[in-house]
Amino acid sequence: MLYEISEKAIQLENEGKKIIKFNLGDPDQPTPNEIIDAAFEAMKQGKTKYSSSGGERKLREELASIHNVSPDNVIITAGSKWAIFSIMFLFLKNGGNVVIPTPHWTSYELTARSLGAETRFLKTTIDSNWKIDVEKLRDLIDQETRLVILNNPNNPTSKVADEKVLEEIVQTANSKGTTILSDEVYSDISFAKTKSILDFDNDHILVKSFSKTFAMTGWRIGYVIGKKELAEKILKLNQITLTNVPVFVQQAAIKALELRQEIVDEIREDYRRRADLACNILSKTRMRFSIPEAPFYVFPKHDGLNSESFALDLLDSGVAIAPGTAFGDYREYFRIALTVPEEEIELGLKKICEALQ
Amino acid sequence: MLYEISEKAIQLENEGKKIIKFNLGDPDQPTPNEIIDAAFEAMKQGKTKYSSSGGERKLREELASIHNVSPDNVIITAGSKWAIFSIMFLFLKNGGNVVIPTPHWTSYELTARSLGAETRFLKTTIDSNWKIDVEKLRDLIDQETRLVILNNPNNPTSKVADEKVLEEIVQTANSKGTTILSDEVYSDISFAKTKSILDFDNDHILVKSFSKTFAMTGWRIGYVIGKKELAEKILKLNQITLTNVPVFVQQAAIKALELRQEIVDEIREDYRRRADLACNILSKTRMRFSIPEAPFYVFPKHDGLNSESFALDLLDSGVAIAPGTAFGDYREYFRIALTVPEEEIELGLKKICEALQ
Repeated sequence: MLYEISEKAIQLENEGKKIIKFNLGDPDQPTPNEIIDAAFEAMKQGKTKYSSSGGERKLREELASIHNVSPDNVIITAGSKWAIFSIMFLFLKNGGNVVIPTPHWTSYELTARSLGAETRFLKTTIDSNWKIDVEKLRDLIDQETRLVILNNPNNPTSKVADEKVLEEIVQTANSKGTTILSDEVYSDISFAKTKSILDFDNDHILVKSFSKTFAMTGWRIGYVIGKKELAEKILKLNQITLTNVPVFVQQAAIKALELRQEIVDEIREDYRRRADLACNILSKTRMRFSIPEAPFYVFPKHDGLNSESFALDLLDSGVAIAPGTAFGDYREYFRIALTVPEEEIELGLKKICEALQ
Repeated sequence: MLYEISEKAIQLENEGKKIIKFNLGDPDQPTPNEIIDAAFEAMKQGKTKYSSSGGERKLREELASIHNVSPDNVIITAGSKWAIFSIMFLFLKNGGNVVIPTPHWTSYELTARSLGAETRFLKTTIDSNWKIDVEKLRDLIDQETRLVILNNPNNPTSKVADEKVLEEIVQTANSKGTTILSDEVYSDISFAKTKSILDFDNDHILVKSFSKTFAMTGWRIGYVIGKKELAEKILKLNQITLTNVPVFVQQAAIKALELRQEIVDEIREDYRRRADLACNILSKTRMRFSIPEAPFYVFPKHDGLNSESFALDLLDSGVAIAPGTAFGDYREYFRIALTVPEEEIELGLKKICEALQ
């Protein structure tokens, strides 16, 4: 229902209505000018042709250097979403199951479903501070398990995985011979120290994106780091699906990496202020929530709430949110994305509080 | 092997070698400046965010008006390749077969294979002027046939389908209850009058692209026209794969449509001159080929040729071609794309003729 609300919100905006968009993790900050200029320069230089389906060599090299791997382990994708679809397609198209801790990003489940794969959910709760129970994880993995999906920091809870738990998860996956897909698209701008899957083991798969880190959501560029054989398989899948991410977009990404520290610090501070503001407001209500350890989300719980009908009704008040059911069995929860200016956060939360009374 | 040669050619270029790239249908003309400027303007206006997975309303409306359908029948895709993958994915992921006349564009077969679908090839030959035998087509279609793929004008032969044959194919598909996917990415710039599948029946599927018509290959934008239910399914698949084609790319496409007549006329004339030149040179050899009725390709036959080893050897002479085997059972053929300047066409063909002696 997340995407239905998104399409509906766009439609309402097209009709001239003002919508406070808490529903999508789409930063309101503009893409930095230097990045836009780099894309324009590349277009003018004729970088408007087909190119390698693995991505531009220079970009792969830069990313390899950041992550301390070989460029052959890096594949450029049309956003992290395409990275995740392509990995799930390759691992699950011939059957098998995928283990997904919840609450989870909506697309994991929809993708598994579109591939006809079995999904096995591992519920985490606010009561245990969203911690994954490694014993339960071990029980869920069997011979048919092709992937375990981690999302660290997590969308929608904005929790960073505990280092020790992460280590146990990796050990469990290794002992069972299962591959972990670690979606770390929020890690560069997280408030808390965030360990990457690559810090533990190079046999698993890292998915990252330029979207959140550089306010580049609509550019559609992300990447996968994995074993060389996997990288080659994704390259081949890119050949028959996307050909390549536009080279001028990749040139923009190279510029983004150059300006990395500066941009990241600024964006992180923006979100820290917003998270403080939202927590401050929410703490005065009777909703429960955990303090975000990363952008962009807060995932409050309101006892007895039917978040689906609440989300639809709220659209009429000009506020779009994501119902908790989009992330699993969390009907009493909803997700707000702090990807709007502070005054909209105040106004939007005010409207939410009013609607909940 | 088409894509291997492509990656190899890029690698050789990266090493500083000069390669005449007859291997890809990637126009050498730059994307017109007005289109680039439109993209830049859109970026500066903040069109760098997520948007509708169906595409921008204005672009869908413009295309709907050109094709005389409703905007709800139009879905914007990341190139025609993504259009074709997504349609094949939706029709074939649960099994069944797809009928593909040959010679065929490489991706159809690779995509079917990646989906585990059965491919049924219908061979056409230079001796019958590449005409599809409708009787044979009827015999190939059975209860398990989910799609028939037409490519009109055809890649690699550059033949335009005969109107009467096309009508018979549509009747055959209708009587068998099978859907036609008609890939018409070369039709806007074809030299001969080219009927669209939509001229016969709105129940089938049209795939088009901005790549060839506007020298926009690397921008990755195309579209599907189909029934509303199909359009909605592709929109949903876009939601879990690409999100959307970058809005600034869609704004560039809107500008392209504005300048359509002018750009198309110029590009078509370029290719007509090149086709004349290539045919003139080839007619002095003992190779057989048919006169292109559309850009970009010539598909000559050289008796006794092993086109795979020929293509690999030729790379060392600085010429990249596509072996006939990339398009089906055509070992003695090879494809040259006239997407290089006239002097390179002359030089490249000279090197090919020398290598064949």
